[in-house]
Amino acid sequence: MQNLLKVYQQVQPHIHKTPVLQSRLLNEATQASVFLKCENFQKTGSYKPRGASNAILNLSEEQRSKGVVTHSSGNFAGALSLAAKNLGVKAYIVMPSSAPEIKRKAVFEYGGIVTISGPTLAEREMASDKIQKETGATFIHPSNDLDVIDGQGTACYELLQEESNFDYIIAPIGGGGLIAGTCLFANAFSPSTKVIGAEPLEVDDAYRSLISGKIETNETTNTVADGLKTQLGSHNFPIILKHLEQVVRVSEDEIVAAMRFVWERMKITIEPSSAVAVAAVFKEPALFKNKKVGVIISGGNVDVTKLPF
Amino acid sequence: MQNLLKVYQQVQPHIHKTPVLQSRLLNEATQASVFLKCENFQKTGSYKPRGASNAILNLSEEQRSKGVVTHSSGNFAGALSLAAKNLGVKAYIVMPSSAPEIKRKAVFEYGGIVTISGPTLAEREMASDKIQKETGATFIHPSNDLDVIDGQGTACYELLQEESNFDYIIAPIGGGGLIAGTCLFANAFSPSTKVIGAEPLEVDDAYRSLISGKIETNETTNTVADGLKTQLGSHNFPIILKHLEQVVRVSEDEIVAAMRFVWERMKITIEPSSAVAVAAVFKEPALFKNKKVGVIISGGNVDVTKLPF
Repeated sequence: MQNLLKVYQQVQPHIHKTPVLQSRLLNEATQASVFLKCENFQKTGSYKPRGASNAILNLSEEQRSKGVVTHSSGNFAGALSLAAKNLGVKAYIVMPSSAPEIKRKAVFEYGGIVTISGPTLAEREMASDKIQKETGATFIHPSNDLDVIDGQGTACYELLQEESNFDYIIAPIGGGGLIAGTCLFANAFSPSTKVIGAEPLEVDDAYRSLISGKIETNETTNTVADGLKTQLGSHNFPIILKHLEQVVRVSEDEIVAAMRFVWERMKITIEPSSAVAVAAVFKEPALFKNKKVGVIISGGNVDVTKLPF
Repeated sequence: MQNLLKVYQQVQPHIHKTPVLQSRLLNEATQASVFLKCENFQKTGSYKPRGASNAILNLSEEQRSKGVVTHSSGNFAGALSLAAKNLGVKAYIVMPSSAPEIKRKAVFEYGGIVTISGPTLAEREMASDKIQKETGATFIHPSNDLDVIDGQGTACYELLQEESNFDYIIAPIGGGGLIAGTCLFANAFSPSTKVIGAEPLEVDDAYRSLISGKIETNETTNTVADGLKTQLGSHNFPIILKHLEQVVRVSEDEIVAAMRFVWERMKITIEPSSAVAVAAVFKEPALFKNKKVGVIISGGNVDVTKLPF
């Protein structure tokens, strides 16, 4: 607990304290009392600067002087670039050639040094290894890194500071960093709150991993929730296995309907990965009816010309 | 001023105090210091319950017992229905047969009693006259009514309570209710602030009305800003003529670009009519550069399956 407080104190100056929103319409529709922790309003449009900042802040002066490196085509690339820039550290970002132009541009704007690799994981890792060797930069994994996990959990901490006595807190599960961090902070600061993971039915590796007790992979990644296609890792899985109450899986239609509900009725833009967590509340009234439910809205980065509506 | 304060005091229990948002990205892009008064988060998704509530609250008990009637295909229909419901008053709403199903549904949900008329203004007025005669209900115009105008101005009042020393406050101009109310409150509580109207180039009746000194009509209404196709009225035009600094006109491309900026970068959904006011800030750096600018975001009611992106 002391350690997690220290994490929050060191991360806090580098992030926005995002709002916690309620909606009468959402409460009526779900029959629950729902509080959205809106990380779509976070710097870079997702929660990821929390973990990126914490990871860099835990490096030694010598490590910082050599920079950090990651490979990501998504929100972590921008988050690490911004966090590094704000701390005067170089960020080397390996992006696959398949990454959308808009994401490359964002990384560039935040001052990240981009290397384009081939699209496969092996090609990305090779490019990243090469940079590590040449520069001495420290590799920071987007989700399977204990400092990153701790940092991501600070969103849950802020939610618990603003509201107490949650029956449930829900977060989407992608690579496992956010859900593991949420588990750690909820367990430490609100032990009676149960943490629930939300996953697309089409990419239900975490659901299956909890059943089998080992990290399962995905055979298909056929989901609109582009941030949730990755699998759990060796550092976050034990935390998830220990603390997570259960995983609620939702269909693609349910994801899109929840996203549309939040956009149209609450007037905020959330990305499909976040809508997965909202869809979970709609999906399981047996679990959530008349309960106090926190939902981590993980981000709002969407190309509005390519919407699933 | 005393009167306007009284307006706010009587309206305030019936509305949300909506947030005033800032964005570093928007400030950088416009080179101004911009504060958005977010009426997209207002009840029914637009500022209109302010004026609707005020108009009903100013009726006598006898008038209230007979109900209110309006004709509207847009946000005012839902706003009057909700305001009436909350005050225990019947609301008769004439909607043209061309009104989208989703709007009829909203009015129904808020308890309005819907009459479908033919699509022309004459047909709508005839249906509304008939209801007045049969029920004794009081007609409340969506924008050309002094109580409605006063009520709409309370959004500006809340903005001025939260932030002071604005150089400019911008609101979109449709029927003229919002901009006239904004003029009244800005003039009373922040006389050094200039009020600017924003209009689509394609529907620039207010711009031409200010030049000619009489109410001009629109020959085309070819704009994405569906809330701004109406023209000024006899009650609001004199206020506008007296207090409005100028009208900034923006193209359809500029409206869509501003809307997209707010959706993608600020993560809130605003309707095209509101984007007109944001586009005005982008359009006129000569006016707004390094200035403190308030923008009334009038609403967020958009069918996300029919976006202009």
